Amino acid sequence: MNATPAEPVTWPSGKRAAACFTFDVDAESAILNVDAAHGDRMSVMSHQAYGPLVGVPRLLTLLARHDVRSTFFVPGYTAVRYPDVVRAIADAGHEIAHHGYLHEVLTGKSPEEEARILDRGSEALAALTGEAPVGYRAPMWELNWHSPTLLADRGFLYDTSLMDADHPYELRVGEHGQLVEIPVQWALDDWEQYCYLPEISGSGLIESPRKAAEIWRLEFEGLRSVGGCFVLTNHPFLSGRPSRAAALEELVEHVVSCSDVWVAPLRDIALHVRGLGLTPRSIIRPDPADF
Amino acid sequence: MNATPAEPVTWPSGKRAAACFTFDVDAESAILNVDAAHGDRMSVMSHQAYGPLVGVPRLLTLLARHDVRSTFFVPGYTAVRYPDVVRAIADAGHEIAHHGYLHEVLTGKSPEEEARILDRGSEALAALTGEAPVGYRAPMWELNWHSPTLLADRGFLYDTSLMDADHPYELRVGEHGQLVEIPVQWALDDWEQYCYLPEISGSGLIESPRKAAEIWRLEFEGLRSVGGCFVLTNHPFLSGRPSRAAALEELVEHVVSCSDVWVAPLRDIALHVRGLGLTPRSIIRPDPADF
Amino acid sequence: MNATPAEPVTWPSGKRAAACFTFDVDAESAILNVDAAHGDRMSVMSHQAYGPLVGVPRLLTLLARHDVRSTFFVPGYTAVRYPDVVRAIADAGHEIAHHGYLHEVLTGKSPEEEARILDRGSEALAALTGEAPVGYRAPMWELNWHSPTLLADRGFLYDTSLMDADHPYELRVGEHGQLVEIPVQWALDDWEQYCYLPEISGSGLIESPRKAAEIWRLEFEGLRSVGGCFVLTNHPFLSGRPSRAAALEELVEHVVSCSDVWVAPLRDIALHVRGLGLTPRSIIRPDPADF
Amino acid sequence: MNATPAEPVTWPSGKRAAACFTFDVDAESAILNVDAAHGDRMSVMSHQAYGPLVGVPRLLTLLARHDVRSTFFVPGYTAVRYPDVVRAIADAGHEIAHHGYLHEVLTGKSPEEEARILDRGSEALAALTGEAPVGYRAPMWELNWHSPTLLADRGFLYDTSLMDADHPYELRVGEHGQLVEIPVQWALDDWEQYCYLPEISGSGLIESPRKAAEIWRLEFEGLRSVGGCFVLTNHPFLSGRPSRAAALEELVEHVVSCSDVWVAPLRDIALHVRGLGLTPRSIIRPDPADF
Repeated sequence: MNATPAEPVTWPSGKRAAACFTFDVDAESAILNVDAAHGDRMSVMSHQAYGPLVGVPRLLTLLARHDVRSTFFVPGYTAVRYPDVVRAIADAGHEIAHHGYLHEVLTGKSPEEEARILDRGSEALAALTGEAPVGYRAPMWELNWHSPTLLADRGFLYDTSLMDADHPYELRVGEHGQLVEIPVQWALDDWEQYCYLPEISGSGLIESPRKAAEIWRLEFEGLRSVGGCFVLTNHPFLSGRPSRAAALEELVEHVVSCSDVWVAPLRDIALHVRGLGLTPRSIIRPDPADF
Repeated sequence: MNATPAEPVTWPSGKRAAACFTFDVDAESAILNVDAAHGDRMSVMSHQAYGPLVGVPRLLTLLARHDVRSTFFVPGYTAVRYPDVVRAIADAGHEIAHHGYLHEVLTGKSPEEEARILDRGSEALAALTGEAPVGYRAPMWELNWHSPTLLADRGFLYDTSLMDADHPYELRVGEHGQLVEIPVQWALDDWEQYCYLPEISGSGLIESPRKAAEIWRLEFEGLRSVGGCFVLTNHPFLSGRPSRAAALEELVEHVVSCSDVWVAPLRDIALHVRGLGLTPRSIIRPDPADF
Repeated sequence: MNATPAEPVTWPSGKRAAACFTFDVDAESAILNVDAAHGDRMSVMSHQAYGPLVGVPRLLTLLARHDVRSTFFVPGYTAVRYPDVVRAIADAGHEIAHHGYLHEVLTGKSPEEEARILDRGSEALAALTGEAPVGYRAPMWELNWHSPTLLADRGFLYDTSLMDADHPYELRVGEHGQLVEIPVQWALDDWEQYCYLPEISGSGLIESPRKAAEIWRLEFEGLRSVGGCFVLTNHPFLSGRPSRAAALEELVEHVVSCSDVWVAPLRDIALHVRGLGLTPRSIIRPDPADF
Repeated sequence: MNATPAEPVTWPSGKRAAACFTFDVDAESAILNVDAAHGDRMSVMSHQAYGPLVGVPRLLTLLARHDVRSTFFVPGYTAVRYPDVVRAIADAGHEIAHHGYLHEVLTGKSPEEEARILDRGSEALAALTGEAPVGYRAPMWELNWHSPTLLADRGFLYDTSLMDADHPYELRVGEHGQLVEIPVQWALDDWEQYCYLPEISGSGLIESPRKAAEIWRLEFEGLRSVGGCFVLTNHPFLSGRPSRAAALEELVEHVVSCSDVWVAPLRDIALHVRGLGLTPRSIIRPDPADF
């Protein structure tokens, strides 16, 4: 046994790193999936609805102001509940990608159950945008070992849920398949900084946008210096609030001003990586016989 | 289905945003409602009593110093236990609004139970001030889907417990009713920053008044810039402590110095909104059949 | 019913506020009382032993450097396990006060059980110092409603476990008794800022000494401005660490430099308050019939 | 009974303090030991794999840049799964020390079980490096009272899991044995600042590298001033991330620039201490009969 790291990638001419500001439009899904009974709590539902109703329009304007195209991960139920919002995202030139139907956390799910969820989510998005999504992000970034096969079988180009590299790679799937993997990390997520929903989520503390933006900017500079891919994950129900959007905008402004950084939707980044013809890499599942 | 955002509102002439410094005088209620046995803990009770006994007088002086009229949400039991304190608030020109009788969290309560609590709270306040409250804030901001009807039936003008907009709107209630809704948000609350009561509440961490005030000021500027309504929620047993009151006062001073911001009690803000003749907006309850 | 606040106190001539840097020498007690089985964990015990072995000597030197006399709350078991350490505290001119025998949290304890603990703790201290302690601090600041009577019956001069005022007062005990109460508050404690013991205590986060010292200094200035009594609580196993002691020393230096602040052991502060001849104040226990 | 503190130590000529930047290469072990079922979570495993695959190479380069030799604590399973990575650490001149086989937390384990784990871990490391480790760090720093005997019986030179001093000492083991103990502390660990794994570990908050580095630098200065030994613990799956490594590098740079501080692997520090001929010190286990 000898697990090996992802080999480095090159970026388009003149660029030494890449970046994408991604948004998970979880809205009610992430909460209803924890417990459908939370749907009985009008205030909790209104807290989540802020995302598509107020956060998304604000963030679309913000991205347009800096000419940034991005990737939005949309649970199928969000598309059913807010079709106009999701259409507006697509119409603004952003990528719509897969994030489950009801933000189903996949830990413990069988391949059959997971397949049903994948198909239901794809259908909900395709019904709205006219095309099936090619990018996938597992809710809570919880991929099962069988997930990559399910994704490859359905023609997905990329996944963005793993955490073992600073930049994308080709993931070996089965014997002949492959999937571009664009890694993420918990420090580049707004949930841990901002989310508080009593008895549902959060440590109970809420951080200042200055602190969140400091972490993200430091890691952006870190990833930039190593030729990595900066993938930030924001939730419109959190980072759509005015002061958080303002802090995010300062970061967007800075990143866009770095001429050595390629800012693009994840689909474009994945296509670029696919074009590099990398040798797919295997991730070795820990074998209980070894421990 | 297509949930839609609240339409923008206009503010009184010359103003582009509104602000209210609200106070929840929970005192013992919020803790006794978690578990009546906490009443056996003398120190815990004294921690809560700090609010009406020391915090409220200090905050009343602070508000008077800046000529700010505000809204105090008072559980009925607080009015029974501290009648002089509640009278002093009213005498200083502030609005006394409804916050349950014993800070009852309404999740899972039937309309009948909730109605009894509403009436008991109103009676306790009216017995003291001579008039029934017209504003309501659900304990823990936990409104049920049936709550707006109960409030409208009782003649309430406004509620301030939902979180799906940056500014007030008219909420459609039943077929013909309406209620002004003035949204709140968790980041504009002092509980998450300051509260620690072992085995009762809090993450265990306590933040600096500087950090709390930074979050609130950033969000004030954010809401100001989008024409929103800044509703800050402080608890006298927390923010009545000297250094926290001092940090709050700096913020009050700043907000009052912004000539484009209308600082007023929530009742005045609600009356202004009512006068705009907005079309009431419906909030669509998630239908389990869709997920 | 109409609970009333503590009346203001005056301080010795030329002083407008008071301050005491108190230390709870919990050592192993606070952990063994949670679960005696923690005594089987050698590392956990060593973490607590740092307090008397390293923290106390460092803090004694620090206090001596600024000529500050203070109050140390010592569980009886700490006196049994570290007699030389406790003697060194007394020899340096500091007050030794009561903090239970094994840091027993008193919630739910009967008066008889509590009496036994009180007596056992007093005996352990008296055996070492030759005099019974006159000051008491309940472990976890958890006083029962019957505790003041038990304390007064045993001749205690003061307690420092309640939280409903910015300064000391005379607490009415029974019909004719009284006890000086010197209030504390959670924000003036180092446990919430620094303590982390896996599966035993702490949120899991550990704060910087700069942040802790900022909170304490802001509240010192706040209490100073209102004529209050600043009572800081530090634990030698936490604040005895070098960088935390350094941050504490900066604060001590500042407080001592304020000529309008009277820095004294709590016993001296209690004696001063006793000398004022205040009318004892009652704290009204919440009556379940009212809620 | 009278537990006594560790006597001071002297450092090599011209040095008044010592420092070591240690790394725990827990990788998958620390998580699999919590629950082997976490091995089914591909994303969680990839989060841990970041340590050996990306973090370790980055940190080795960082240490080489400043000519710092260090100590890496490697669970046996990490050596089995990543032999090339562990060999690279040893080849770079760093010490490979013992950290269990699967990061087994030893609380409640019998001496026989613990012995089996110790031997299994040593064999896994020796198979790779050709020599048995002489240094030991208990997973979660949880030493049992019987652990020192087990370590001394197996020829270990030092342990680094206790917390009752600012500098190393000779620990009395049984009647005639001894073990150098190099104390640690929770504030000098990156886990509390950075780790978040949903439902597995972490408070839910993630701190900025600036805040973590501030705590560590303040404590370094504190320990330096008292002649102590600064032992920082970083986990490559956490502090191997670019911005955290950058913050760590600033600290390394500073520490190395202090000519009065001896930076060395823990083995060298332990050998130095052994050479001082200190009288071994006993730690007295709390006796339930006393409480």
